[in-house]
Amino acid sequence: MFESAEIGHQVDKKRWKEESARLRPALLDAQYRLLKDGRSAVVILVNGVDGAGRGETVNILNEWMDPRHIRTEAFGPMTEQDRLHPEMWRFWQVLPPKGHIGMLFGSWYTDPILAHVQDGESHDRFAHRLERIRQFERMLVAEGVVVVKLWFHLSKKAARSRMKALESDPRTAWRVTEQERQHLKLYDDMVRVADEALRKTSIGEAPWLVIDGSDPSYRCLAAGQHLLDVLKRTLDRPNAPAGTAEQVPEVPSTLAIDGPGLLATQDYTRQIKRKHYEEALEELQGRLALLSRDPRMRHRSLALVFEGMDAAGKGSTIRRITQALDARFYRVVPVAAPNENERAQPYLWRFWRYIPAHGKAVIFDRSWYGRVLVERVEGYCTTQDWMRAYGEINEYEEELSEAGVLIVKFWLAITPDEQLRRFRARESTPHKTYKITEDDWRNREKWPLYERAVEQMIDRTSTQVSPWHIVASDDKLWSRIEVLRHLCDRLESALDQVSRRGAGKA
Amino acid sequence: MFESAEIGHQVDKKRWKEESARLRPALLDAQYRLLKDGRSAVVILVNGVDGAGRGETVNILNEWMDPRHIRTEAFGPMTEQDRLHPEMWRFWQVLPPKGHIGMLFGSWYTDPILAHVQDGESHDRFAHRLERIRQFERMLVAEGVVVVKLWFHLSKKAARSRMKALESDPRTAWRVTEQERQHLKLYDDMVRVADEALRKTSIGEAPWLVIDGSDPSYRCLAAGQHLLDVLKRTLDRPNAPAGTAEQVPEVPSTLAIDGPGLLATQDYTRQIKRKHYEEALEELQGRLALLSRDPRMRHRSLALVFEGMDAAGKGSTIRRITQALDARFYRVVPVAAPNENERAQPYLWRFWRYIPAHGKAVIFDRSWYGRVLVERVEGYCTTQDWMRAYGEINEYEEELSEAGVLIVKFWLAITPDEQLRRFRARESTPHKTYKITEDDWRNREKWPLYERAVEQMIDRTSTQVSPWHIVASDDKLWSRIEVLRHLCDRLESALDQVSRRGAGKA
Repeated sequence: MFESAEIGHQVDKKRWKEESARLRPALLDAQYRLLKDGRSAVVILVNGVDGAGRGETVNILNEWMDPRHIRTEAFGPMTEQDRLHPEMWRFWQVLPPKGHIGMLFGSWYTDPILAHVQDGESHDRFAHRLERIRQFERMLVAEGVVVVKLWFHLSKKAARSRMKALESDPRTAWRVTEQERQHLKLYDDMVRVADEALRKTSIGEAPWLVIDGSDPSYRCLAAGQHLLDVLKRTLDRPNAPAGTAEQVPEVPSTLAIDGPGLLATQDYTRQIKRKHYEEALEELQGRLALLSRDPRMRHRSLALVFEGMDAAGKGSTIRRITQALDARFYRVVPVAAPNENERAQPYLWRFWRYIPAHGKAVIFDRSWYGRVLVERVEGYCTTQDWMRAYGEINEYEEELSEAGVLIVKFWLAITPDEQLRRFRARESTPHKTYKITEDDWRNREKWPLYERAVEQMIDRTSTQVSPWHIVASDDKLWSRIEVLRHLCDRLESALDQVSRRGAGKA
Repeated sequence: MFESAEIGHQVDKKRWKEESARLRPALLDAQYRLLKDGRSAVVILVNGVDGAGRGETVNILNEWMDPRHIRTEAFGPMTEQDRLHPEMWRFWQVLPPKGHIGMLFGSWYTDPILAHVQDGESHDRFAHRLERIRQFERMLVAEGVVVVKLWFHLSKKAARSRMKALESDPRTAWRVTEQERQHLKLYDDMVRVADEALRKTSIGEAPWLVIDGSDPSYRCLAAGQHLLDVLKRTLDRPNAPAGTAEQVPEVPSTLAIDGPGLLATQDYTRQIKRKHYEEALEELQGRLALLSRDPRMRHRSLALVFEGMDAAGKGSTIRRITQALDARFYRVVPVAAPNENERAQPYLWRFWRYIPAHGKAVIFDRSWYGRVLVERVEGYCTTQDWMRAYGEINEYEEELSEAGVLIVKFWLAITPDEQLRRFRARESTPHKTYKITEDDWRNREKWPLYERAVEQMIDRTSTQVSPWHIVASDDKLWSRIEVLRHLCDRLESALDQVSRRGAGKA
């Protein structure tokens, strides 16, 4: 992995002058084309061993290009706020929008490597984290983000002599930190683990480039030239031809074979009397109130997802839940079509922003499942896009879950007849007419397409980690009670797990 | 101030049932009208003495309305991150966009009151902070934010008996915290200081409502009814008739009286030879690099503002500065037309987001001064809007400055002839054509209007706290050196101040 980076590359002054004079305008030009082109964002990960010139390279790239359209972020140890969220949360916060370049000094590789080498995290855990990164980067690339991964290397000999040189000069001795001394002692382990990390994550979509860091001129030119090549390749690629989406085989469906599917076979006759409803509501809201105030909740957070056809009762059900909660505990996020900023980012970006910190709840009124529902049915994304979304969503939910987020997902199922009744009632009730629009009627005509999308969604994303709960909702009262009961049960068992296993996995 | 709130208001069960049944749909309806209307955001400040029902009222308002469009935020003591920024920064982060409601539990009043009563902050400082709040709220209102200020009051007797009741019951004794006991001891001081705070900030645009907090039903109805009244008044107000902007007298101008103004009288002949330029550049970049790495910089942050006509050399000057800096130290923010999210907020909102934390720098390529330049000249805002902006901007910069932000503002001044030369050069240089657009030529025709706007801007916003530095820039080389020299001087004296006075005021 590091062989080529140890042969002692060097560039003389003349070559440096010529090459940097050539690279600079070319990079600037490519940067402006990127901005204008607007199809891709670029993330540059700057990693490697201490003293191999990471900081200097970041500076020179900012100097060569227009720093107004580059966002440089340095990541140290996690802050108080970071630790209340899933690991990847802090990186999602700084992803560059399309057209822009983000430079991450210290990236999602730093912590897994250090945790394995220094803090004794197991090899299984390390491998698992690398697998997660691989999935994450694949998703980024598929969403139009170009991931440039640079690893700056120094041979053991070069690392040792660099440190000695710094230490022996009183003006530079302060630059050698205790941490760097530690790292040098662990050099062999570091390189071995880095080798594995690079090997396992050098995927075709986002390969690593290892750069010999011993000569300042060489390493800058190598990084700059690589970046230029990647930018050019990115800019020169044609737009996907209009037809390609169709060539992807759709998910196999069992729908047509033997008549009614998952939704049609729910029991829509279940109902509850008003009097019993009110008793049950009071009891369950009381139970939920106590659970939400449970001290163990400090180690967990809660993400509720409500999906359902129009008029399925999402809003009114959510209100029965929030009535039981302290307003400082929860946040309701209604999800509509993405805005300008959101469209410039991977589709999961806007949901990452709302992920609750420990001790908090977020209720999504529609969610990331829009990708495989409305976006699929209305053709707002390609078949490829929504096909890969199943896996990406499962991965996302697993990640949240490992970080202590309990995800509870409800599909509120109604029959077409019941929807029609509710639409008509809305039209004839003065203060409810705002709730019914032309879009609702249009969507209704596509009922069979939506039904198929819903069934496939449930088949493919109802997992052990985060199962769907289908609630037949033709009777609103029965549905609300069922939602509250299920929520309380799930929350209770999640909190019991905290007692049994401690603050770990949700 | 609190007399009416001590007479012991009470509402019986029957009245509660009737009134809440009436309020609830009315509030919900008003909330939806607000959302649809889209002209205003609503911020509800929930303040008052302990145990007067602030939390319960926040909950009931969330219950009565649609919690999907309400964002509730509770503010405790400042976090690590908050303390690295100006005081108001954390409130700016959570302002609701137009159409939405934000509920702040604990607001910008909490800290000034507690600091004065408990921590012995002087009365002068207290009065100064109230004055700042008054300015801030006036600005919010002028920008279309409705500020609803609720103060929940309890008489000393009621506060005491509430605490006794809680303490005497083992199930509720835990609810009485040490902090609350402290506050009760200080009751008289608290009420006296709160009285002054309310009196001084009960401005016409955003008056206080004091509510008797002793009876749960009464206080909820009072808060709900007040909110409903405010919402209705907000929604029923007519759009400003098209003509009103003209009726505001413009700022008096001395321009026409005796010929050439501030810009025309700059000395545009100053220049520097390439050889001297290169020496001076190297020296000044070295000086700037050292200053930016100075340990005293941890107590300061740096905000640079670059304004100038098109082609004045802002971009190239900024690059001469960033070349001297570590990429992790600074961020360049190019300011263009506001996007969708930004348009739904007060115009200063988007700049508050980029305010650097201590130890960091932000370079604005164009800035909040767009309000009194392009927005004024092109008519993107009303005369009222840009007229009040002078005061709001001065206030804003003073606030940043007090929090340790050094603001250095440059106007890069060029002559119309020089601009023409640069436009033509851009058109004929292949890799620079992206830099010249139709807009540039159009703006050029409005030169006299811009000139007038610039001169008035400098007259009105060049303050002791944050003066403008006008740099004649017909010679690019001279201009860059002048900018760097001035920046180094200002930064040096700011850091010297840290040595002399400690980490306080910038």
